[in-house]
Amino acid sequence: MAVSITPGRTALLITDPQVDFLKPESVVWDHVGETVEENNVVDNLVKLRDAAREGGIRVFYSPHYYESDEYENWTHLNSIDQIMFDTRMFDRAGSGSAFIPELEPDENTFVCAPHKQLSGFWSNDINTQLRQRGVDSIVLAGMSANLCVESHLRDAVEAGFEVLVVTDATAAAGREALKAAYTNYGFIAHETATTDEVTPRLAQKEVASADD
Amino acid sequence: MAVSITPGRTALLITDPQVDFLKPESVVWDHVGETVEENNVVDNLVKLRDAAREGGIRVFYSPHYYESDEYENWTHLNSIDQIMFDTRMFDRAGSGSAFIPELEPDENTFVCAPHKQLSGFWSNDINTQLRQRGVDSIVLAGMSANLCVESHLRDAVEAGFEVLVVTDATAAAGREALKAAYTNYGFIAHETATTDEVTPRLAQKEVASADD
Amino acid sequence: MAVSITPGRTALLITDPQVDFLKPESVVWDHVGETVEENNVVDNLVKLRDAAREGGIRVFYSPHYYESDEYENWTHLNSIDQIMFDTRMFDRAGSGSAFIPELEPDENTFVCAPHKQLSGFWSNDINTQLRQRGVDSIVLAGMSANLCVESHLRDAVEAGFEVLVVTDATAAAGREALKAAYTNYGFIAHETATTDEVTPRLAQKEVASADD
Amino acid sequence: MAVSITPGRTALLITDPQVDFLKPESVVWDHVGETVEENNVVDNLVKLRDAAREGGIRVFYSPHYYESDEYENWTHLNSIDQIMFDTRMFDRAGSGSAFIPELEPDENTFVCAPHKQLSGFWSNDINTQLRQRGVDSIVLAGMSANLCVESHLRDAVEAGFEVLVVTDATAAAGREALKAAYTNYGFIAHETATTDEVTPRLAQKEVASADD
Repeated sequence: MAVSITPGRTALLITDPQVDFLKPESVVWDHVGETVEENNVVDNLVKLRDAAREGGIRVFYSPHYYESDEYENWTHLNSIDQIMFDTRMFDRAGSGSAFIPELEPDENTFVCAPHKQLSGFWSNDINTQLRQRGVDSIVLAGMSANLCVESHLRDAVEAGFEVLVVTDATAAAGREALKAAYTNYGFIAHETATTDEVTPRLAQKEVASADD
Repeated sequence: MAVSITPGRTALLITDPQVDFLKPESVVWDHVGETVEENNVVDNLVKLRDAAREGGIRVFYSPHYYESDEYENWTHLNSIDQIMFDTRMFDRAGSGSAFIPELEPDENTFVCAPHKQLSGFWSNDINTQLRQRGVDSIVLAGMSANLCVESHLRDAVEAGFEVLVVTDATAAAGREALKAAYTNYGFIAHETATTDEVTPRLAQKEVASADD
Repeated sequence: MAVSITPGRTALLITDPQVDFLKPESVVWDHVGETVEENNVVDNLVKLRDAAREGGIRVFYSPHYYESDEYENWTHLNSIDQIMFDTRMFDRAGSGSAFIPELEPDENTFVCAPHKQLSGFWSNDINTQLRQRGVDSIVLAGMSANLCVESHLRDAVEAGFEVLVVTDATAAAGREALKAAYTNYGFIAHETATTDEVTPRLAQKEVASADD
Repeated sequence: MAVSITPGRTALLITDPQVDFLKPESVVWDHVGETVEENNVVDNLVKLRDAAREGGIRVFYSPHYYESDEYENWTHLNSIDQIMFDTRMFDRAGSGSAFIPELEPDENTFVCAPHKQLSGFWSNDINTQLRQRGVDSIVLAGMSANLCVESHLRDAVEAGFEVLVVTDATAAAGREALKAAYTNYGFIAHETATTDEVTPRLAQKEVASADD
C-alpha cells in the first residue's frame, strides 16, 4: 500500500546519521564504505532532509552512542555489539559519534536520545516523540540497512505506524547485508521507494498516486 | 559467544509450529515448502523438543492466529499482513492454524497467547512467561526464518536475553528470504548452531565447549 | 482536556469484567464487594457497553486469566500476585474467570488475549488491536481501579493514547485502594467522568462540550 | 517477599533527583515541599546512594527533562503533563532540571537518558542498562511517589524485575498523592522498607533476614 505523506502526520526518521557509518574516518569503513558510496547515501539523506523541510514534514534523528561505562560493563554482547565494542564505534567521547556536517540538526530536526542496541522503540523516546506530535506514518532512512533501520522498521510496524523505507538512502556492512535488508523490507514495510520517488512527496509537490 | 543452556534458566522457544507453515496443506506451501523440506524443519523441531524435555528445559510456543474480526477490520496492513490476510493464513476457525501433530503440546510445553504481526514481545505474554520462570537465555527455532523468528530474536536481544538460533530448524518463503535471515542472525544472535549441534546441549548430555 | 469520543477512533476498553471481581462468588469478594456494590459497577459497565454499541464505538475486553502452569511455576510474585495465586483467582479452569453474564461478549466486542500481571500493554495484544483499527482515544473502565485499570491507563498514556477514565465504573479492594486510584487518575488521565456523563457521548447523542 | 540485594544483580534506581522536585526553588515547591521535608527525602537519598556505593551496588538515575520543542509541539497532554508544561518544569535549558548538588553523579552512578512522561521503561534506556549488567532486582526511590516512582515500579514488575520501594525516600504533590502511592506500593512492590532498614542491606553489612 502507498503510505500517505502528510504534514503533521508523517515524520522523516533517520537512524545513525553519524561519522562512524557515513564517512571514510568511520571505524568500520572497510565494511560499510562500499555500499554507502554506491548508494550515495549522504547525498540522498540530504535530499530527503531538504524535501521534508520544504514540505513541512518534521525530521527525527535516532542516533547511536555508547559511553565508557557501557563498553566496560555490558555483559550480553551479541555479534554486532561485540564488533561495535571492540572498535569503540559510536564512542560519545570520540569523533566517530558526531553527526556528519551535511546533516547537522537544524530547526526542523528533533534529536531523540541515543538508542542502545538496534532499536529506539526499546531504548529511547522515539515512540513518545512521534505519538505526542500526532505522527502515524514514517519515512525511514539511515544506517545500517539490516540492523538499526530494519529494527526501527519492525518495531514501528508493531507499534502501529505505517512505514515507507527509502531503499537508496541506506547501506550496510557488505552487499549480503544490504540485500538481506532489501529482502526483508519487501515483506515488512508498507511501501518501499527510492529517494527520487519520495522527495517530491515529502516536499508536498505531488500527490502520491503510486500503488505499491 | 556461546550461549549457556541450563535447566531453569534456558527456554526452547518455537514460533508458529503450525500447519500453515509446516505441512503441504499450508495456504502458502508454494512459497515455504521447498526450504521446509530441505531443512527437514519438522524433524529438527521434534529433535529439539525431545532433547529439551530430556534435559529439563521448558518449551514455549509463540503461535500465530487471526480471527475473522481482524481479517475484516485491521487497517494498516504491511506486505506480509496483506498476504496472510488474502490467504486467511492462520485462521483460528480453520485447520491451517492447528499445531502439527508431531508438535502437539505436551506436559513440558507452555503455549503463549497468539502473537499478532511478527513478534510476541509486542503482542503476547512471552516476555512475562520467561521472566516469571527465571529464564535468561533462549534457544530459538520455528517459522518463518526472516519474519517471526527474526523478530522474536531481535526483540529478545533488546529485552536482555541471550539467544541461540537453530539455523536448520527454520525455513522461509523462498531461498532469498532464508538467506536474508541467516545473514541477519550472524549479526544479531549471540550464537547460531545446527540442530545436531544443539540437541546434546539441550539434553544436558555434554558441556558446551564451543566458542562462537 | 476533554477526550474526543468518535466512532472509528475511540474504543471502550474494559478490564477484567469477570466473576472473580464482580460477583459475590468471587474469591476476593470480601475485599472488593463493598465498593463494587456502592459504585454499581456492573450496571454502569452495562450502560457503557450499550451506549458504545449504540454509538458505533467498538468495545475491547482485556481479561485476566491464569493457568495451572503459572500458579505452579512463576517465581517473582509481588504482593498482589501472591494474593491472586493463593486464592487461585482468575483460574481459567474454574468458574471465577468467566465473564459475568451481563457482559457476555457480543458482536461489538473484541476480546483480547489475557493480560498477565496488571497491564495488557506488556502482555497481550491490546496495543496492536487498537492501533490496527485506527483507535487513538480510549474510554477506560473495569476492575480493579488501582491495579489493572490504573496500569492500563498509565501504559495507554505512555503509548500515545488519550484516555478518559470512568470513575464509577470501577471499584477496588477497599476504600483506600479506590481512593488511591481516584487520586492518581486526577494526575494521569486526560479526563475523568461518571457513567452518566459519558454514556451520551459514547452513544453519539450529544457533542462533548465539557472542559476537564 | 524479601528482595535479595546483591552486588552485580541489584541496582539502586533513583528517579528525578532534580532541583524541580527536591529544592525550594522548584517550580512546584508549593505542592511537593511539605512531604519532601517531612520525609527528609534528600538526606535519605544520600544515605541510600552512599550505602549502595559502599556495598558495591550500582546506582542508576532516570532523570526527567523537557526541551522547548516538546513544550511547544506535544499534543496529547494529560493533567500532569499540562502542569509540567505550564510551569516549564524540568526545562533542560533552566536551572530546575539540574541534579541537586548532594546527588551529583559520581563514579558509581550511571545516568540514563531522560524519561518522558512518567516511565523510563517506555522512553529511555533503563531496561537495557539494567539487563546488560545482569541486574534482576531493584531498590527504587526518588520523586514523585505516585507518578514517576510508581510508573517505574509498575513497569519494572511487568518487565520481570523484583522491586523494593523505599517508602521514606520519596514524596509527592500533597499528602493524598503520597498516601495513594503507599497504598499502591503495598499491592505492587515485592517489598517495601524504610531508608534505615535498607541501607545496611545495600552496604552489605547485614544479611537480609526479613520476611515481607
